[in-house]
Amino acid sequence: MSTSGKEMHDLVKVLFPICRSITGNGVRETLKIISKHIPIRINEVSSGTKVFDWVIPKEWNIRDAFVEDENGDKIIEFSKNNLHIMGYSTPIDEWVDLSVLEEHLYSLPDQPNAIPYATSYYDEKWGFCICHNDRMKLKDGKYHVYIDSSLEDGALTYGEYIIPGETEKEILLSTYICHPSMANNELSGPVVTTFIANWLNSKPRRYTYRIIFIPETIGSITYLSKHSEELKQRVIAGFNISCIGDEGGFSYVGSRYENTYADRIADHILSSKYSEYIKYSFLDRGSDERQYCSPGIDLPLVTLCKSKFGTYPEYHTSLDNLDLVTADGLFSGYSFVKDCLKAVENNYKYKATMMCEPQLGKYNLYESGIKGASTNTRKFKNLIAYCDGQNDLLWIAEKINCSLEELLPMIDKLMKIGIIDRLPLQ
Amino acid sequence: MSTSGKEMHDLVKVLFPICRSITGNGVRETLKIISKHIPIRINEVSSGTKVFDWVIPKEWNIRDAFVEDENGDKIIEFSKNNLHIMGYSTPIDEWVDLSVLEEHLYSLPDQPNAIPYATSYYDEKWGFCICHNDRMKLKDGKYHVYIDSSLEDGALTYGEYIIPGETEKEILLSTYICHPSMANNELSGPVVTTFIANWLNSKPRRYTYRIIFIPETIGSITYLSKHSEELKQRVIAGFNISCIGDEGGFSYVGSRYENTYADRIADHILSSKYSEYIKYSFLDRGSDERQYCSPGIDLPLVTLCKSKFGTYPEYHTSLDNLDLVTADGLFSGYSFVKDCLKAVENNYKYKATMMCEPQLGKYNLYESGIKGASTNTRKFKNLIAYCDGQNDLLWIAEKINCSLEELLPMIDKLMKIGIIDRLPLQ
Amino acid sequence: MSTSGKEMHDLVKVLFPICRSITGNGVRETLKIISKHIPIRINEVSSGTKVFDWVIPKEWNIRDAFVEDENGDKIIEFSKNNLHIMGYSTPIDEWVDLSVLEEHLYSLPDQPNAIPYATSYYDEKWGFCICHNDRMKLKDGKYHVYIDSSLEDGALTYGEYIIPGETEKEILLSTYICHPSMANNELSGPVVTTFIANWLNSKPRRYTYRIIFIPETIGSITYLSKHSEELKQRVIAGFNISCIGDEGGFSYVGSRYENTYADRIADHILSSKYSEYIKYSFLDRGSDERQYCSPGIDLPLVTLCKSKFGTYPEYHTSLDNLDLVTADGLFSGYSFVKDCLKAVENNYKYKATMMCEPQLGKYNLYESGIKGASTNTRKFKNLIAYCDGQNDLLWIAEKINCSLEELLPMIDKLMKIGIIDRLPLQ
Repeated sequence: MSTSGKEMHDLVKVLFPICRSITGNGVRETLKIISKHIPIRINEVSSGTKVFDWVIPKEWNIRDAFVEDENGDKIIEFSKNNLHIMGYSTPIDEWVDLSVLEEHLYSLPDQPNAIPYATSYYDEKWGFCICHNDRMKLKDGKYHVYIDSSLEDGALTYGEYIIPGETEKEILLSTYICHPSMANNELSGPVVTTFIANWLNSKPRRYTYRIIFIPETIGSITYLSKHSEELKQRVIAGFNISCIGDEGGFSYVGSRYENTYADRIADHILSSKYSEYIKYSFLDRGSDERQYCSPGIDLPLVTLCKSKFGTYPEYHTSLDNLDLVTADGLFSGYSFVKDCLKAVENNYKYKATMMCEPQLGKYNLYESGIKGASTNTRKFKNLIAYCDGQNDLLWIAEKINCSLEELLPMIDKLMKIGIIDRLPLQ
Repeated sequence: MSTSGKEMHDLVKVLFPICRSITGNGVRETLKIISKHIPIRINEVSSGTKVFDWVIPKEWNIRDAFVEDENGDKIIEFSKNNLHIMGYSTPIDEWVDLSVLEEHLYSLPDQPNAIPYATSYYDEKWGFCICHNDRMKLKDGKYHVYIDSSLEDGALTYGEYIIPGETEKEILLSTYICHPSMANNELSGPVVTTFIANWLNSKPRRYTYRIIFIPETIGSITYLSKHSEELKQRVIAGFNISCIGDEGGFSYVGSRYENTYADRIADHILSSKYSEYIKYSFLDRGSDERQYCSPGIDLPLVTLCKSKFGTYPEYHTSLDNLDLVTADGLFSGYSFVKDCLKAVENNYKYKATMMCEPQLGKYNLYESGIKGASTNTRKFKNLIAYCDGQNDLLWIAEKINCSLEELLPMIDKLMKIGIIDRLPLQ
Repeated sequence: MSTSGKEMHDLVKVLFPICRSITGNGVRETLKIISKHIPIRINEVSSGTKVFDWVIPKEWNIRDAFVEDENGDKIIEFSKNNLHIMGYSTPIDEWVDLSVLEEHLYSLPDQPNAIPYATSYYDEKWGFCICHNDRMKLKDGKYHVYIDSSLEDGALTYGEYIIPGETEKEILLSTYICHPSMANNELSGPVVTTFIANWLNSKPRRYTYRIIFIPETIGSITYLSKHSEELKQRVIAGFNISCIGDEGGFSYVGSRYENTYADRIADHILSSKYSEYIKYSFLDRGSDERQYCSPGIDLPLVTLCKSKFGTYPEYHTSLDNLDLVTADGLFSGYSFVKDCLKAVENNYKYKATMMCEPQLGKYNLYESGIKGASTNTRKFKNLIAYCDGQNDLLWIAEKINCSLEELLPMIDKLMKIGIIDRLPLQ
C-alpha cells in the first residue's frame, strides 16, 4: 500500500478542531477517529488512581467560554479558537474589573499576533489566552467572564495497538493526543503514527509493534505504571514520535545515556540519508522520553522529530497550524520513521561461510577496472570483510560508509550465493 | 571561623627569614612556628637510615657565611639573604684566587638581578649564589671565603597532623618545608595547608585527613618508606600543595595515569569554577607527586598550584619573595584547596526513590514559563534524571553542566522531600 | 653485515626482465635467483587443487607473442616488453581485422605513453596491452595475431624460508612474485624482503621469522589453506611488503580492525621516525592483507609501503620501471622494515625494582640545571615512571614522546644498574 502526504494532511485537518486535553471527551473523540484507520483498543483509567508519584486528575470537559465587554461584544471566544481557554480552566460566570481579568490573561509580547497555549492541570484556576495585540486594546471597565467547564471524577483515556511479529521482542512507538488545535505539536505525531501502523500491518514483521496514543507525561507515567515490567523485558527499541510534520530539518533526542539501540538506529538513518540533522542531548528533552528513559525504567528509546518542540517559533501557539504542517512535511516525517523501522527489521549479524575472500568472479560479482576492482566490487568486498559474526549490519554500514539501504540488496545477493549466513537473533 | 589572606601573608612573613634545608634547625624552627597554629606531631628520622633507594643524609646547619675582598669589604653576606649560600655547603675558611672562587659561584645571566637558589645535597662541596650583575664586578685578586656550617649525623625532621573523620578512609595533604627564603615555592604551601587544617578541624568531617609537612623528595620518600602500606589502603584522594600563593592562574599536575579520583576532583573544580586553568601532564611533574604516584606506590594524588614550579620567572630565585605572594593570592589558593576538599566531602551517589519523573509541582519545585519548564526546574529534572545509583555527584555535575557547588543545595532539598536517597559509602 | 641500496637495485635489475605471472616458469626462475641470496624452500601445489573458495588454475607459460601488419611490420612485440601481453592470454595464430583486434587491446587514454598491465587469470581469452598513442596510429586492415602460450595442468610455485628464533612465536613476512616487468609493484617487495632475511639471519633473534614469496591473492589463499592453523597460533605480528622501493613517503595499510600488534608497531615507527606518513584504512586495502586479515584468519598483519599500490600514477604500467625504484628508495624502504622488526625484537615490559624514584645521582644519571633536572634526566625519570610492569616499551615510547630507538640504550643502562627488570615474555 502506498501512503500520500495528502491523506495524512487530511486526517490532521479532521482532528485539528477538537479541543483535547490530558483527559476528557476531546481525547475520546480523537481516538475514535483514529480507530477508523487502525483497530486501536481504547482504555480508561479512573481519576484518583495513583501512578508512581502522580495521581490521575479529575476529568476536564468544556462546552463554551467567552469574555464579553460592557457593550455585549465578545472579545474572546472559545468557539473561534480553543487555544483561547487555558487547559483545565475551572468554571466561572462573573463580571470582573479589567484589573482582575488581567491576572487571568496569557499573551506573548514577542509574538503579538499569536494566541499562546497554556494549561493548569494540577492547580485549579481559570485563564484565557489572547493575542498580545488584542490584549493591548482592552479598556478599563467590567468584563463578563464565562467558562462552561467541568472538573469531575472520570478517566484518563488512551489508545493501544499491538501488531504481533515473528518474535515477542517489541518495538515501541509512542505519540501523544492531549493538545488542542495545534498541528505540528501535536497532530503530526498521532497522524504519522497511524499511517506507520497501517504500513506495518501490511507486511510481514520480525518484531512485535506496540503502538500507544497517550496524553503526554501523565499518560506515559500511567502506561508505565501498568506495563513497565513487560516493556523492560520486551522492548529492544522505542521511538517517541512528535513534531514530525513541518518542513524543517530532521532531528532526534537521544536517550539518557545516548547509547541505546534506538540511538544507533536514529543516528545511522539520519547521518547516512539526511544531509543535515540535529542530534539533541537528553538534556534537551521535553516529551515522553523523559519518562521512558527515567532511572529504573530505562527503555532504549529516542524521540524522532523534524523541528523539535521548543525550537521553532510557532511552537505552543496558534501559529502551529495547518500551514506549518504540510503534506510534504508529513510524508518526509513518515519516511524517516519508516526508515528507522526498516533498519530495525533488517539489522542482523552475518557471518562468512568460508575463509579468505570468496572468488567473486565465479558469482559475477567481480568487475575490474584496469587498475583494480571497481567501486561496486570494493563495496562487496568491504561488506564481506566485516561479516564476521561480530557486527550487526548497522555497524558495518557505518564502518564501510554505506547506508543500510544500499547494503540490503547486496546482503540478499550474498545470502543467495551462499557466501554469508544470517545469524539467528539472540 | 573565617580566614583572611592577611593572616596567611603574616605567617609567610614570619617564616620567610628562616634558612631551611632538607634537614637541620631551619626545618625544626619552621615546624615549631606552625605548631602554634595546629597541633602537629614532629618526627625525626636519623641520618644514615636507608629509605628505599636513598639514605637520609647528614644534618646540615649553618651559622654564617661570607666572601670578603682584599679591602675587607664583604661582597657576599649570608646574613643579608640566605639564598647566597648553596644549600649543604661544606665549611671553609680560606683565601682563594678569583679564578678558584668563580668555580664556586652560581648566577643567572638572563636574570642578572636575581640570586639563584642552588643546593648540593648529595655531593659534598661549597658554593655561593650571587646576582649576575654583582658577579660581573668582581676584580682579580684574593678573596676570603668563609662558611661556618656543619654536616653531622643528626636527623631529618617532619611534621604530621591527623584529623580523624567518620571513616578511616583518608585524604592526604602534603606540603614541603625545605626551601630557604622563597615565598611561593615554598612558603605558600605550608601556610595555606596550615590554615586548611584549621578549617578542617573546625567542622564535622566524613574523611580522616592526614596532613604532612616534609622536606621535598627525601622527605616524601622517607614518609612513604614508613607508611606506604597504610596509605595505599586508606587514601582515596591526595593533594600535594605547592606554589599556591601568587596571583597567577590555577593549575594542577595530574597523577601518573591522570585517571584517579584526585584528578577528577581537581579537574571538576577548575573547569566548573575557574574560567582558565592549566592541566599539566605527569610528564611536567617536579614535586612530591613524583614519589606519591611512582610505580608500586600509586597513590591517587595530584599537585595543586597557582603558577606551577618551573613555569614562572621568579621560580627558584630571590625574586620569589613577599611581593610575589600576596594576601589575595594566598586566599584564592586557600579557596581552591577548600573547594577540592568540599567536593570530596560531599561527593556521594544518589538514587531516585520512585520511577518516572516526580511531580515536582507537589513540592513547589516546578516553575513554568509559557513555553516549558524554567531553567531552574530543568536543572532539578536533570539532576534527578542521573540519580540512578550509578554516578557520583561529581559525574552528574559534569554531565549536566553544573558546578558541584550549585548542586549541593538542590541535593539537600531533594533529600528532604524524599525524592532521592543517598547511597552508603562503599 | 651492511646492505647497500645499490646491491638491492642490482637484484631488481636482474629480476626485472622475467615474465612472471601467478603460475609458470617466470615464478620459478625468480625464486631460483632469490635462492642464491637466501636458502628458500620452493614448493609447488598442483593445478586443480581446491583452496577455500578458489581452485589453483592451469599453469601459464609463454614463449613469444606479436601483432604484425599487412606489411610484415611487427607493431607489438612481447620480446620488447612483456607487459604487451595480457597475463594468461590463450594461444592464437590468426589474421584478424582491426575491428576484431581492437576488442583485444588495452590502453590508457590518460597515460598515452604507458603500456598498461592487464591479466585474465580466470576467464580464458587473449589480449595485448599497448601505449594509447601507438593504438591511435593503427590503420584499417588485417593483422597477424600470434601468441605462443600454453595453459596446462601444472603447479603454483612459492618460496618459503623459516629462520628460527629463541621462541616458536613468529613474525610473518610476506611478499609477492607474480608481476611481469614492473619495479615498485612488485620487485621492490621481494628484493627488500630478501635483504631483510639476510640481515635477520646475521644476528640472534627473539622470534622465529616465517618469510614467504608467493603469487598475490591465489598464493596467499593457497598458503593459508595449508597453514592457517599454525599461523593463527604462532604469529604475533606480520608484515606484507609491497611497493617499498620508490622515493615517495612512507605508509601502511592497517589490519581489519586497525588494532593489532602490527598496527601499533608500524604506527609507532612511522610517527616517531618519519615526519610525514599515511595510514591507510583497511578499506583502502588491495594486496595480501585482504586474505591475512579476513574473517576467521585474522592474523595481526599490516602492509608496509612507501607509495601504496593504486596511489601513484606509474602503478600497473610500464612506467613503474627501474627509474621509479632507486637505490635510495630501496634502502629507505629496507630501513623502515628493519625498524619495525627491531621494535618487535626489543619490545618487552619492564618493572622497577624499587619503590619511589631511584636516586639517579648515585648512578651518574642525574644532571641538573640550576632550575631543575636536565631534559635528559627527565627522560630517564619518565621512562622509569612507566616501567610498572603494565606497559610494553612501545606504549611507554608513545606516552613519553620518545622513539623506541632512543629508549633502547637507556633501558640497557637501567637494566645494568639494576633499577628495572625485564619481564619474561608471556
